[in-house]
Amino acid sequence: MLDAPDANKAPIVAALRAEMKARQLDAFILPRYDAHQAEYVAPHDERLAYVTGFTGSAGLAIITMDTVALFVDGRYVVQAVNQCPKPLFSHHHLFDDPPEDWLAGVAQPGWQVGFDPMHIPPTLFDRFAKAVQQGKLVTVEDNPVDRIWVNQPLPPVGEIEPFPVQISGQPTREKIDELVSWMRASGAELLVETQPDNIAWLLNIRGADVAFNPIPQSFVLVNANGSVLWFVAPSKLHPDVLQFLPETVQVRAPDEFLPAVKKQVEQGQSVLFDPAFSPVAVRATIEKAGGIAQPHSSFLTARKAVKNPVELQGMRSCHIQDGIAWVEFCAWLAAEVPRRSEAGQPVTEREAEEAILRFRQRQPGFLEQSFNSISAAGGNAAMCHYSTRGDNQVAIRPGDTYLLDSGGQYETGTTDATRSFAFGPKRPQGYDRAYTAVFQAFHSIATLRFPPGTQGHHIDAICRRPLWDLGLDYDHGTGHGVGHRLSVHEHPQRIGKPYNPVDLAPGMILSLEPGYYEQDSFGIRIENLVEIVEVDDGFLTFSNLTWCPIQTDMLLVEMLTDAEREWINAYNQRVVETLGSGLSSEALAWSKTACTPV
Amino acid sequence: MLDAPDANKAPIVAALRAEMKARQLDAFILPRYDAHQAEYVAPHDERLAYVTGFTGSAGLAIITMDTVALFVDGRYVVQAVNQCPKPLFSHHHLFDDPPEDWLAGVAQPGWQVGFDPMHIPPTLFDRFAKAVQQGKLVTVEDNPVDRIWVNQPLPPVGEIEPFPVQISGQPTREKIDELVSWMRASGAELLVETQPDNIAWLLNIRGADVAFNPIPQSFVLVNANGSVLWFVAPSKLHPDVLQFLPETVQVRAPDEFLPAVKKQVEQGQSVLFDPAFSPVAVRATIEKAGGIAQPHSSFLTARKAVKNPVELQGMRSCHIQDGIAWVEFCAWLAAEVPRRSEAGQPVTEREAEEAILRFRQRQPGFLEQSFNSISAAGGNAAMCHYSTRGDNQVAIRPGDTYLLDSGGQYETGTTDATRSFAFGPKRPQGYDRAYTAVFQAFHSIATLRFPPGTQGHHIDAICRRPLWDLGLDYDHGTGHGVGHRLSVHEHPQRIGKPYNPVDLAPGMILSLEPGYYEQDSFGIRIENLVEIVEVDDGFLTFSNLTWCPIQTDMLLVEMLTDAEREWINAYNQRVVETLGSGLSSEALAWSKTACTPV
Repeated sequence: MLDAPDANKAPIVAALRAEMKARQLDAFILPRYDAHQAEYVAPHDERLAYVTGFTGSAGLAIITMDTVALFVDGRYVVQAVNQCPKPLFSHHHLFDDPPEDWLAGVAQPGWQVGFDPMHIPPTLFDRFAKAVQQGKLVTVEDNPVDRIWVNQPLPPVGEIEPFPVQISGQPTREKIDELVSWMRASGAELLVETQPDNIAWLLNIRGADVAFNPIPQSFVLVNANGSVLWFVAPSKLHPDVLQFLPETVQVRAPDEFLPAVKKQVEQGQSVLFDPAFSPVAVRATIEKAGGIAQPHSSFLTARKAVKNPVELQGMRSCHIQDGIAWVEFCAWLAAEVPRRSEAGQPVTEREAEEAILRFRQRQPGFLEQSFNSISAAGGNAAMCHYSTRGDNQVAIRPGDTYLLDSGGQYETGTTDATRSFAFGPKRPQGYDRAYTAVFQAFHSIATLRFPPGTQGHHIDAICRRPLWDLGLDYDHGTGHGVGHRLSVHEHPQRIGKPYNPVDLAPGMILSLEPGYYEQDSFGIRIENLVEIVEVDDGFLTFSNLTWCPIQTDMLLVEMLTDAEREWINAYNQRVVETLGSGLSSEALAWSKTACTPV
Repeated sequence: MLDAPDANKAPIVAALRAEMKARQLDAFILPRYDAHQAEYVAPHDERLAYVTGFTGSAGLAIITMDTVALFVDGRYVVQAVNQCPKPLFSHHHLFDDPPEDWLAGVAQPGWQVGFDPMHIPPTLFDRFAKAVQQGKLVTVEDNPVDRIWVNQPLPPVGEIEPFPVQISGQPTREKIDELVSWMRASGAELLVETQPDNIAWLLNIRGADVAFNPIPQSFVLVNANGSVLWFVAPSKLHPDVLQFLPETVQVRAPDEFLPAVKKQVEQGQSVLFDPAFSPVAVRATIEKAGGIAQPHSSFLTARKAVKNPVELQGMRSCHIQDGIAWVEFCAWLAAEVPRRSEAGQPVTEREAEEAILRFRQRQPGFLEQSFNSISAAGGNAAMCHYSTRGDNQVAIRPGDTYLLDSGGQYETGTTDATRSFAFGPKRPQGYDRAYTAVFQAFHSIATLRFPPGTQGHHIDAICRRPLWDLGLDYDHGTGHGVGHRLSVHEHPQRIGKPYNPVDLAPGMILSLEPGYYEQDSFGIRIENLVEIVEVDDGFLTFSNLTWCPIQTDMLLVEMLTDAEREWINAYNQRVVETLGSGLSSEALAWSKTACTPV
């Protein structure tokens, strides 16, 4: 959707430096963030990619007159070096060599360091403000990248539609009342919300501003008296939306957002905002207006994470549709890989991801993919964030292993699953042992019971242990939260090593996705979504949502405990029972074979 | 060692209030801490127990003219209510209802709140300073409790002896050099150390100022030029100590400590201190002298935690001595409980703890207990911090279950272990199922392999899972650090639910001690010490230190996996092999029966 990664960025960087000079800036901080801090940004907001060529989902550049320092996390180190060649770029680790420390090291007395206050959250701003003693951080009102960007895509204008209460499970008015009660209990007069999925959840609307996420870009200002100002381009609103919303919600133009905050905030008023996910301009506006800026992790983030019964029912039901698509795909793949290979026209990675999309499109209620599928054969699967290009010709042959990580947006919910495949008896050295351990890891976490108060970092190692026993591990989290017809990555809950002080609670949705990756050789991952449920004795456990057979060909059955063997047989049997009547005869036949007990 | 718990505290509280009035104090903060923040304090420093009667190992009181508010953690809630009766006392939870918030709620404008700056660390002081807006925190120079305490024990004068390099494994000079290099690398000119075990480790000395811990109460001030001032009462020094210490170490009187800090600190100098474990008076002195107070978790705490090869060898060897004492005790207990019961003079809890001490005293190198043994029959074992009194007559009968948690200080190291016992076929409902799960929990953590970078809060749940599977849990940590002939509870490493950002590293010693407690019915705990070792592939694992059979009578063998069954058989067999030649014939015979494979 952007420049090819090998495009020459020298002229663009030169133009940006000229623009910086004109504004007397010695450095400019360019994060990947837009004003809403979501994982995906609209083409209009791909400023980092435009200037640097780096297309990863997280990163930050600092442009000085000498260098363009690019900061990415471990997932993207190799990709960044490939996409952003030296000497124009210098490369740094986002966490080990944080940008504020780097900047503190190069900044000279008197430097003016520019930043766009709509694209940096307070937590990140404060890190720069603390570290950079030599220079001065300077707000830029109009983004210099936008000035030099030739043919910058327009801001997104995805249509916003009502999201009916039959699917959301709770009327907008009730959600607003809950929020306002909480504000009052917190002693706050105003609350600013800038996260698109929180706004979509609160107002019961869905949008189309960024790929894969049915979210609208907009801002919300809530008054403890119950009135809600929604700053959104009126042109994006489906005609039904205004009628659908309670009359306490009033629409305003997006460029009235900060002026309205300024106007509503009175001396000494307490205003809640999320310091990690809102633009620093929000805090600055509150403080300039004499209000008390009250940082607080968004109430809506926590509230939205615990799904209501209707949302849960929707998640369960769309997973049956999605399971049918998965099994149809598996049957297709099992038949086509040898057939096409024999015919000398092997199935490609790209074709396989097109196939799962095609099978999903046949399902009632399917809307779009929930993320860019990862369709990866052999060693490509060792790159956790691999993505194919349109001209992809990488074959999936009977001797290959293969991984598909894919999900869909459906009317009633969001799906995300991964399966690992092999097509014949020949597999890379160590694959079966690792596959068996990844299954054991998945089984270990999927069958866990845990007491209330348990948090994601407490149980991550429970999943890793079968791999640790072999001296193996995986360098990603074990599970992420998932939205209800919203973003496939949803915080605050997660299962991983980093400290995450969020109690796992009934009604939360998580992925469980252990894996193992051997560079240039293979990648394995098994991923299901689950909901957290309470059991009789007050303990919590995971209830499965995803229905697709877990392949047994690559299991070293003699390594399994009885419990593991019984579990996979029961799960695969339940897949057939759950989906059977919706499957084509080919898929049903395949699934019966694939699900033969081991 | 103090007043009986039922002593009437009203006159003491009245005297303290009079003393407070004379100083115009409206409230006085009285923590259990002394100036060194260790778990055990000398009788001289038992101010909290003198005023309130509460004898637990952690707690804090705030005395006002209206009430004595006592704050204790979950372990001591029942004990505090028993020892400190209403209406003189009011009771609060140390974490759920923290003292600073309580004080903020009752303080009136103009209140003067006194505290002893030698007994409160900066982190705690800052919490009070932040919360209490209405009053003023007032330093008291001479502790009002000491003024009113009739017959206050004198400060401890335990003799300080050299700790030879043959046991410590590293000369004092080398340890000081390491510390000074680290200070220089940190850009610090001075460092204050007030933790007795850190000072004992650094100077290679051992003392006798508090029960169970061979630590000297003293202070140290290190200059980056290599000179060390040691503030310690000269009367406590064994004549060999001065010759033993490098000449860069100079002895000063304890009351010269703060004046020396004041004198050495120059304008703008950077001075390191531990904000959680040093008196707030240290920070105040640094700041008043114009220095830059640099809070930093003590280098020595981290350095001491990773034992050197000689320390590890000492730990391994004293555990063999201790194992012999344990097995002699087990054989004695198994024989005496039925015999004495039949004779109508059952063994008491107190006798049992005297017996383990007697068996330890027969071991070469044994010095003293490493803590007050927990010797508890039946429902008493459900109280995790149960302790017997001299007049204890609680019987251990053949139908009872019993728990002993006990350890020793030996010349070359420190031990700590727990075993759970039953003497006949009759056991409380649910005991065997719980005992089996506690063993499975112990096995689960003891056999773990984990990658470098793993921290204690990551693996705590690995231990709990077998209990969680049954809807059970235990309300204490899974493991604590242990000193080398130092404190049996040593930070920074631990295994537990709370976030503890300390990488588990080879050479660290930990206890592993899952348990299960059923109120008024029984308590079960299995505890061994282990050292962390690196294995071939770079992963880490636990290597066992403790040698005492794990009782098998109460195991539901049919619930065990093959791995669990093989593990306990192999462990018990290794106990006999390791200790056999050191055991009496009775103990050897008992251990051979007890260790029969299941």
